[in-house]
Amino acid sequence: MNFADALHSEIHKKKSPLCIGLDPHIDCIPEVFTKGKTPPQIIEDFLKEVINAASPYCACVKPNLAFFEIWGSDGWRALESVCEEAKKQKLYVIADGKRNDIGSTAERYAEAFLGAKTPYDALTITPYLGQDGIIPFIQTASQNKKGVFVLVKTSNPSSGEFQDLPVGDCLLHEEVARAVARIGTMDTGDTDFSSVGAVVGATHPDDIKILRSEMPGQIFLIPGYGAQGGSAADVKTAFYNDGRGAIVNSSRGILFPQGEKDPIENIKNAAEKARKELYTISLS
Amino acid sequence: MNFADALHSEIHKKKSPLCIGLDPHIDCIPEVFTKGKTPPQIIEDFLKEVINAASPYCACVKPNLAFFEIWGSDGWRALESVCEEAKKQKLYVIADGKRNDIGSTAERYAEAFLGAKTPYDALTITPYLGQDGIIPFIQTASQNKKGVFVLVKTSNPSSGEFQDLPVGDCLLHEEVARAVARIGTMDTGDTDFSSVGAVVGATHPDDIKILRSEMPGQIFLIPGYGAQGGSAADVKTAFYNDGRGAIVNSSRGILFPQGEKDPIENIKNAAEKARKELYTISLS
Repeated sequence: MNFADALHSEIHKKKSPLCIGLDPHIDCIPEVFTKGKTPPQIIEDFLKEVINAASPYCACVKPNLAFFEIWGSDGWRALESVCEEAKKQKLYVIADGKRNDIGSTAERYAEAFLGAKTPYDALTITPYLGQDGIIPFIQTASQNKKGVFVLVKTSNPSSGEFQDLPVGDCLLHEEVARAVARIGTMDTGDTDFSSVGAVVGATHPDDIKILRSEMPGQIFLIPGYGAQGGSAADVKTAFYNDGRGAIVNSSRGILFPQGEKDPIENIKNAAEKARKELYTISLS
Repeated sequence: MNFADALHSEIHKKKSPLCIGLDPHIDCIPEVFTKGKTPPQIIEDFLKEVINAASPYCACVKPNLAFFEIWGSDGWRALESVCEEAKKQKLYVIADGKRNDIGSTAERYAEAFLGAKTPYDALTITPYLGQDGIIPFIQTASQNKKGVFVLVKTSNPSSGEFQDLPVGDCLLHEEVARAVARIGTMDTGDTDFSSVGAVVGATHPDDIKILRSEMPGQIFLIPGYGAQGGSAADVKTAFYNDGRGAIVNSSRGILFPQGEKDPIENIKNAAEKARKELYTISLS
């Protein structure tokens, strides 16, 4: 099975297209996890607790690399430790690093995140450099049954500044989508899904519908759900009728939920609520 | 002085617009530096030797982060150690990480690379996310007298796939150039140069000329010189008559030069040759 088929299988088993974003805002971490510790130990210990609490409710987690790199090499060590814990819990780990480069440099980034012995299963990449900056990642991913997610349409307010510029008969992000669909055929699995997915923001539901038809074989990684304003209904068109085709990321809504119980119970409840909501939508 | 003025001053003092790219291809490192060691210690020790040998001939170095991340957190520790050595030699350090993200994530990447206590002076970033993905980097850079270099036009064969698409009255990379020039006014120094520079590939000399007029206040970071096929004459139009306006990167040509002397002498000779050639062109 390629990455897409394996991930779909796990989503089906867990009845959960939820991806939990590991964006550890240090000021939001409950005191019980910070007492007597300094970062990055705080984020490492907190995220391991989150992973252990929430792993029944999701197939994958997405560590946001900036939140680790801010602590330098010690932060990277925490990243590795957190991701190894996620692998122990049989979760898919999507390194959200938005890497991009060409040739031998891209090969090294690919090896760093998609190499056989790394604790990551997929990496987000940015397409500005064209296919020279995408293909080396796909080659390494394909060899190791791992995946990549190419930024196509992001969820931030200024995403349209370049991504929505008209280029010929479509917008730039649609041109990128077509390139991703085309290059994605380099590694398709038994069910015609590619190990090359796409990042598509949930704050643009109309875009999602168009992009679904431009990229029929891509798993969509959808950020922007929950705290960023996207609703479950917004992401509906990303899913095929059988529930395949997308994973939906929630970070703050799971890591730092409102709730009156102890923090871990609140996290479990938030994850189960998001799982149920997204699973229902994915099959509706 | 802002980053641009300080860098220009150092370039003037050293008579060198050369930037040495720290891309340590492990298979190319001479045996004298590898014997009895394992990576990433090999790259750390080799690059410190390179920095000590070549520092008289350049104002800045550009570590390519992929070559460190391939060794995980140990690689990041080597990166920090190498960059601290470069700072001891009073070199400007441009972290070539091509980071890109938005909001609080961008702020964290900015803090990781442009924070006051980090051993880096500038960071390369990728513009696909629009100004939400650029401004947080400028804000942190400005506070700490550091800089950013935004990818505008890259030097790889497929760079035109998206960057050269026509958008309205210009090409996408020119639209990006205009945005960089506009946003760059957020932090201009005494000489009208901004702390926001631009990455412009040397393999496209015609583009350099056009982009120089689109971005009058940007320092150009020009990769692609030497091993990648760009000549010194190709980069001439990036410089103003007084020699300001650009730094030109050479990686393999300096780190792994041909030569019959001992490796360190060869590196010194290659750096001095590139310095002289580029300095002459910058003033011609």
